[in-house]
Amino acid sequence: MAKSPEQEHPKKAFGWAARDTSGILSPFKFSRRATGDDDVTFRVLYCGICHSDLHMIKNEWGGTSTYPLVPGHELVGEVTEVGSKVKKVKVGDKVGVGCVVGACHSCENCMNDLEVYCPKMILTDNSFYSDGTLTYGGYSDTMVANERYIIHFPENIPLDASAPLLCAGITVYSPLKYYGLAEPGKHIGVVGLGGLGHLAVKFAKAFGAKVTVISTSISKKDEALEHLGADSFLLSRDQEQVQAAKNTMDGILDTVSAAHSILPLIDLLKSHGKLVLLGVPEKPLELPVFPLLMGRKTVAGSCTGGMKEIQEMVDFAAKHNITADTEIIPMEYVNTAMERLAKGDVRYRFVIDIGNTLAATKP
Amino acid sequence: MAKSPEQEHPKKAFGWAARDTSGILSPFKFSRRATGDDDVTFRVLYCGICHSDLHMIKNEWGGTSTYPLVPGHELVGEVTEVGSKVKKVKVGDKVGVGCVVGACHSCENCMNDLEVYCPKMILTDNSFYSDGTLTYGGYSDTMVANERYIIHFPENIPLDASAPLLCAGITVYSPLKYYGLAEPGKHIGVVGLGGLGHLAVKFAKAFGAKVTVISTSISKKDEALEHLGADSFLLSRDQEQVQAAKNTMDGILDTVSAAHSILPLIDLLKSHGKLVLLGVPEKPLELPVFPLLMGRKTVAGSCTGGMKEIQEMVDFAAKHNITADTEIIPMEYVNTAMERLAKGDVRYRFVIDIGNTLAATKP
Repeated sequence: MAKSPEQEHPKKAFGWAARDTSGILSPFKFSRRATGDDDVTFRVLYCGICHSDLHMIKNEWGGTSTYPLVPGHELVGEVTEVGSKVKKVKVGDKVGVGCVVGACHSCENCMNDLEVYCPKMILTDNSFYSDGTLTYGGYSDTMVANERYIIHFPENIPLDASAPLLCAGITVYSPLKYYGLAEPGKHIGVVGLGGLGHLAVKFAKAFGAKVTVISTSISKKDEALEHLGADSFLLSRDQEQVQAAKNTMDGILDTVSAAHSILPLIDLLKSHGKLVLLGVPEKPLELPVFPLLMGRKTVAGSCTGGMKEIQEMVDFAAKHNITADTEIIPMEYVNTAMERLAKGDVRYRFVIDIGNTLAATKP
Repeated sequence: MAKSPEQEHPKKAFGWAARDTSGILSPFKFSRRATGDDDVTFRVLYCGICHSDLHMIKNEWGGTSTYPLVPGHELVGEVTEVGSKVKKVKVGDKVGVGCVVGACHSCENCMNDLEVYCPKMILTDNSFYSDGTLTYGGYSDTMVANERYIIHFPENIPLDASAPLLCAGITVYSPLKYYGLAEPGKHIGVVGLGGLGHLAVKFAKAFGAKVTVISTSISKKDEALEHLGADSFLLSRDQEQVQAAKNTMDGILDTVSAAHSILPLIDLLKSHGKLVLLGVPEKPLELPVFPLLMGRKTVAGSCTGGMKEIQEMVDFAAKHNITADTEIIPMEYVNTAMERLAKGDVRYRFVIDIGNTLAATKP
């Protein structure tokens, strides 16, 4: 018989888990493995709430959820123990773990530091380790991970506001780099001003690009221009504005998950421009082919990034003072936060103060 | 009052034109401009029949056809006169003209030898010169073009079988190069074994790729493997074969214009693979977003190529003995050829023997 979550590993752990498709989170005792030779163990201090956490706890992604489900893949904290072979960090260092905690390390993707695209990739939460036990995410007091999956955070970076870099940050940084958009003078459009979108504006600006925020809501204009420092704002329902902006953008990061038309976005691209989809609409989008051909345009996807690139992104963020705009919440607020997140009522990322508030919720 | 086609320019010309949306072609007297300082005039010897000729003569592309319409944008022949400033070719040289005869020469695309993507690009047929007169294509006895749009054909290349390189050839060559697929060891899929597809197999093989022809029809198997030299054949209706080929291809050139599902093609791509659409379905295709994200895959378009690249392609074809498989027809057969083309009954490109058969049709 399989051991209980509390008994399957030697180290006691405590977090909050969803128990069923209601997605309601509640205190949960489980365990983590002992620190292996290549492992780093750390005390979790903060964990960001990603929109995919919401989908996962409610089993909204094609029945892939396994309960009890401890979400969280934007976790940061302080190293408490390292294995004998670990070289990357030492006890006391500030570290984090993102979406991935394992991969095969021998396929073409792994060899190219693209672990997230490895067919045997293991997610930080709601996935299975090679020993068959469930992975539990960052809404918890401790974490153990192979050092390959440990990101080192420079001392000058505020940990709470940096946690969202581990998923939201790399999800926008990686395509800017991969699709040749991280260059001074490029004109980048950002669709959707949420957790991903607001970081896309910051990174694109730091790369020296001209950034236009594209939104259906005029209420985002001041925020985009005054607060986030975008260069311009395009109200996508204003046909005159849209017409004037046609064929002007080198790339667009589209962070919207709701069904929407991509033809107007393709029209905003210059020839050879790239529309990068980062949200996952439930149904297929309509792809108009003629404008793709006539302008040699690209519609593409991207999924977070490899470990080497995440470290590069965190170091870049530290150098350019890029952090997420966050609302720090106590652990017990998490279910309310999920309700607000479902309504888009957050500017722009909830981060749970695990270090100061989780222990008090122990039964 | 506007002058008649016979009188608007000083040089007499003769070809076949469609007069209305029936698309029926018949003998047509018109005129061409005198050879300007930068112009090359040549006697047309052969002209390929592209599938888009069929759409254009019947006005099937959104009402863009202007009659009388002389089609033809794969024309080759022998230089008869050159302007005083022409350096590229001399009288007697073998030359050709592809899809484009003009552009602004000052925009970013023109500066980068990508004239076909210039917003002011002028098509060889069914378009307008800057003086407002109609462009007439290659189903005609002579052609005059600015030397920038003249392609030089090496002596060792058979002109008749090379005419289709000017559109079909560059349409497959350019995306193989641009999307990083023209490299030894790449695994390239080719969907649709027609005018474009059969040349895609030949160019991809010449680049050292492993080529798989993907088709709904088993009848294409022998042709693909034995005649065209593809490495493998994938019957797209055979689920077992499709399953086995998943995640194996670096790129796919999809030459199909009919409505079809691209999800199975996206699944055939490795992560970071590229699906390049070269046909123009009338309606938008369904674009599944999740597999694009999970594999950082790309769906893109491509439209022929710039003049510099067309010359590079012709030189590459000459070096590697790449020509189209053609059925050479007399001018008077053209309407029958169009009927056969509409049914896909050609292996793989009709080429009109203009030099030997057009004059006899003069009224």
